[in-house]
Amino acid sequence: MICFQDISAAANRIKDAANRTPVLTSRTLDSICGARVFLKCENYQRAGAFKFRGAFNALSLLSDQQRRAGVVTHSSGNHAQALALAARETGVRAVIVMPRGGNQVKIEAVRGYGAKVVLCRNTLQARESAADELVEREGLSLVHPYNDERVMAGAGTAAKELIEEAGELDMVLAPVGGGGLLSGTAVSVKQLCPQAVVWGVEPAGADDAWRSLRSGRLISQTDPHTIADGLRTSLGEKTFAVISSRVDDIVLVAEAEILDAMRFLWERMKTVVEPSGAVSLAPLLQRRLPEHGGGSLRVGVIISGGNVDLSAFFAAIKT
Amino acid sequence: MICFQDISAAANRIKDAANRTPVLTSRTLDSICGARVFLKCENYQRAGAFKFRGAFNALSLLSDQQRRAGVVTHSSGNHAQALALAARETGVRAVIVMPRGGNQVKIEAVRGYGAKVVLCRNTLQARESAADELVEREGLSLVHPYNDERVMAGAGTAAKELIEEAGELDMVLAPVGGGGLLSGTAVSVKQLCPQAVVWGVEPAGADDAWRSLRSGRLISQTDPHTIADGLRTSLGEKTFAVISSRVDDIVLVAEAEILDAMRFLWERMKTVVEPSGAVSLAPLLQRRLPEHGGGSLRVGVIISGGNVDLSAFFAAIKT
Repeated sequence: MICFQDISAAANRIKDAANRTPVLTSRTLDSICGARVFLKCENYQRAGAFKFRGAFNALSLLSDQQRRAGVVTHSSGNHAQALALAARETGVRAVIVMPRGGNQVKIEAVRGYGAKVVLCRNTLQARESAADELVEREGLSLVHPYNDERVMAGAGTAAKELIEEAGELDMVLAPVGGGGLLSGTAVSVKQLCPQAVVWGVEPAGADDAWRSLRSGRLISQTDPHTIADGLRTSLGEKTFAVISSRVDDIVLVAEAEILDAMRFLWERMKTVVEPSGAVSLAPLLQRRLPEHGGGSLRVGVIISGGNVDLSAFFAAIKT
Repeated sequence: MICFQDISAAANRIKDAANRTPVLTSRTLDSICGARVFLKCENYQRAGAFKFRGAFNALSLLSDQQRRAGVVTHSSGNHAQALALAARETGVRAVIVMPRGGNQVKIEAVRGYGAKVVLCRNTLQARESAADELVEREGLSLVHPYNDERVMAGAGTAAKELIEEAGELDMVLAPVGGGGLLSGTAVSVKQLCPQAVVWGVEPAGADDAWRSLRSGRLISQTDPHTIADGLRTSLGEKTFAVISSRVDDIVLVAEAEILDAMRFLWERMKTVVEPSGAVSLAPLLQRRLPEHGGGSLRVGVIISGGNVDLSAFFAAIKT
């Protein structure tokens, strides 16, 4: 029986394969935020995002028969690369369903890791049915990008490492898209620092998790508008259940706040973070903190990834 | 008597003020370079470059009378910000001579640290004479950007930390502009790993150190052409003497190689490095290594800084 709550077991499975990413701190950041801030930098994770943790954990849990048949997923983003890399590392065949006309750099990166890419129309329905068909026809196992206990538990190992390195925390923030990272983070934090507050941070232009938490039922995201391309997805049933019971609040951030946070991370912290990865820092830079009785609040922030297309930037400075 | 060779004393002076910057490694990098590579990332130093080490060391060595009078330097780059910050930290007045019409962001950063900026014409001679005049008229102490034993010794503390963390190294590379970082690095490495080879790396478009080392006499840089703006300066007499006696070779890199190294650091290592800071990695990515008898070469690389103007990049993604 796979359990999303067993973060320690997931940590043991991935420990030789995943990077133990650094926790960055900055005096300037602390003084701007009015808190002691610990950034868990998953942009330094293999394949550039926290996704490798869940992908590798899922592959470690396959039966022999499942390993022989291979795995499939649908993703246009970081989960695609993460599963392709994890599959190569574990000698498992991987098929990735990606939208036709999507980012060619990402498609080539997935192929570079040795995975097979199947292109389909760019709708969630088309991607899901293409993946379902591969499950049925070729006997592949589906490793869903977030609505999967193995993936959620794997994602939670980042918060575990953060707390091991930073010590007791009063609060932890993580971005929320499909909810895999936030649910895993919440489980991990409530086990290790039960008194700590957990906030999910979501772009105001893709606020399905915020609306779902407030209404008490799963509301799907339609027509998202945000630069944070990793957070345009809807919560899944499994992630929603965990988030409902363990996350203290979801806070919304504006596009300008996301860009300010990203720029702070690049210019001042010298770390390349993608828009989705910078979202979780945005409320802190605005000093949006819960009430706290004296002393300096100790806040952990999960920076989820750093995959940005820099072609235009380097083309511009070359001239 | 101040001695550029006393790196340990400099390390003790700066240890509470300077960041102990991280040493980054990467499996991908090792496999591209055919060596085990350890990146000492001074882009994470305070004020964004190794310069803070030398500036703080110099200020720590002022007499009481010198402290009361204050310090002056001429710099359009990272040394200006570093000295301004170090002066604020130590409660010393600082005046920075900067070229009129230069980068406004840098001028504002220096003022932001509380230093006074004196603008002058954009020639080395104009800057030097403006600084000399301030020394004479106001009794300020000059803290030269590189041709100063205190600054050279401070710069050498980065290599000391690198070796403490990475262990024995076969080779260390550092960029060379005025030679402060390279001379301090060479002293440090030859003390701690006497068998290790030290290379300076210089843009082919600003090759005064390469020509000076080969001819055996100090040749000044005229009309440099390189994107690595921190490396357009000429060696000083003091840095040239140390480099002549302790550096094994200077290697030249092309502009395209500098940009490739910078892009690798941003895209794959997720770390924001300025062109001058990426120069030292460029020969390794080209597998330009000395002959080595078996086993994997262990190579340290000093990444000197990460101050890049990102305004254009963020203006472009905002739209």
